[in-house]
Amino acid sequence: MDPEIQYYAQHPRFHVALDCIIFGFDRGELKLLIHKRRFEPFMGHWSLFGGFLKADESLTDAANRILKELTGLEHIYMEELQTYGEIDRDPAGRVISVAYYALIPAHRYSASYSQRYGATWVNLHELPGLIMDHNDMVEKGLRRLRRRAASQPIGFELLPREFTLPQIQSLYEAIFGSSLDKRNFRKKLLSMDVLIKLEKKDMTQSRKGAYLYRFDRRKYQRLVEAGTGFAI
Amino acid sequence: MDPEIQYYAQHPRFHVALDCIIFGFDRGELKLLIHKRRFEPFMGHWSLFGGFLKADESLTDAANRILKELTGLEHIYMEELQTYGEIDRDPAGRVISVAYYALIPAHRYSASYSQRYGATWVNLHELPGLIMDHNDMVEKGLRRLRRRAASQPIGFELLPREFTLPQIQSLYEAIFGSSLDKRNFRKKLLSMDVLIKLEKKDMTQSRKGAYLYRFDRRKYQRLVEAGTGFAI
Repeated sequence: MDPEIQYYAQHPRFHVALDCIIFGFDRGELKLLIHKRRFEPFMGHWSLFGGFLKADESLTDAANRILKELTGLEHIYMEELQTYGEIDRDPAGRVISVAYYALIPAHRYSASYSQRYGATWVNLHELPGLIMDHNDMVEKGLRRLRRRAASQPIGFELLPREFTLPQIQSLYEAIFGSSLDKRNFRKKLLSMDVLIKLEKKDMTQSRKGAYLYRFDRRKYQRLVEAGTGFAI
Repeated sequence: MDPEIQYYAQHPRFHVALDCIIFGFDRGELKLLIHKRRFEPFMGHWSLFGGFLKADESLTDAANRILKELTGLEHIYMEELQTYGEIDRDPAGRVISVAYYALIPAHRYSASYSQRYGATWVNLHELPGLIMDHNDMVEKGLRRLRRRAASQPIGFELLPREFTLPQIQSLYEAIFGSSLDKRNFRKKLLSMDVLIKLEKKDMTQSRKGAYLYRFDRRKYQRLVEAGTGFAI
């Protein structure tokens, strides 16, 4: 690192950590990936996944590294949420924590990682008490997810590559925590013009089956950038 | 500070700074408060207002302290924008910077502070090159301001206590950088039901004068919390 000038040197330095709010969608439910912390303080208590920032990495690199280490997944949808800097948030010392929220399709998360890190998917309705300010992070993360899902087709990040209309609706219902009118939902969804209907059906949920869809990545990306459109 | 355990101590520490994107509204224009930096590196170059985090203050306290020191104003609308952590963003050493954006009514900003800190209001269209990643901060701040102004009555923070309908429209036009249809704008604005019409007129802009309004703080606050409503 470059030598710092006198003016900088007189100011204190802080540990900087990253905490990841990892949302997943599995069997109709919105879930959160947490684990039991393996060092003091709070060893054995439920915690978000996190880690300390290293000297040679940017915040984004650190968040990607932590997610990759813990899930094996890359190119995950991730967004900075908020930076937590209360003086006494960590009893072991001052740590500034940058919270990120990530969306991963739960079916892509391998059980081997789960074993290695003692990770557990918990339903958001049954979230246990988490250490420090982690419950607040989850609450803010959920609020942000809802806001995004209301204005962008963000929720699709949580679905498998091919999905049925009932699956998308069930995802949105899980995000918003309330049931949506089927006809209205489909009308809005199809009017966004981001879905490609495939010539095959999912036959596992009903005898009639449900057509599978995937999204048109280019149109999808354009909608995300425009930041409007999905007023559910 | 509490003694830290071994696990924490092995991780590096970083300087943490705060940078404030201070928006103001003055004579129909959206402006930004900047100054010429008074220490190296980049001494004499245009910069946002900022400062280092102290050991005994939270991030929010620090942002409020910096704003108060530089403007004399308290209870300013302020929101965390993003945390900047690229390795080489500051050539003098690694500094993690938390960017906040603030909205202040330019008429409340006293010239004595301007002199003391060499502060200048610049029109957003005539923004000079700022040091480091500060131009990026301003761009992101402006984007966030627009998003907020489109969904909440946030812009009112920038107006004096009593204002005319042409003043609000001019504020929104300045934020969005485009002219708005007068009839539509007023219809939407009045439908929000947050304005109280006063029994007096501003006579400075036309012979007929324009009625003065102020907003109903309780209704206004409710709309901000709901986060919807002002689809301009």
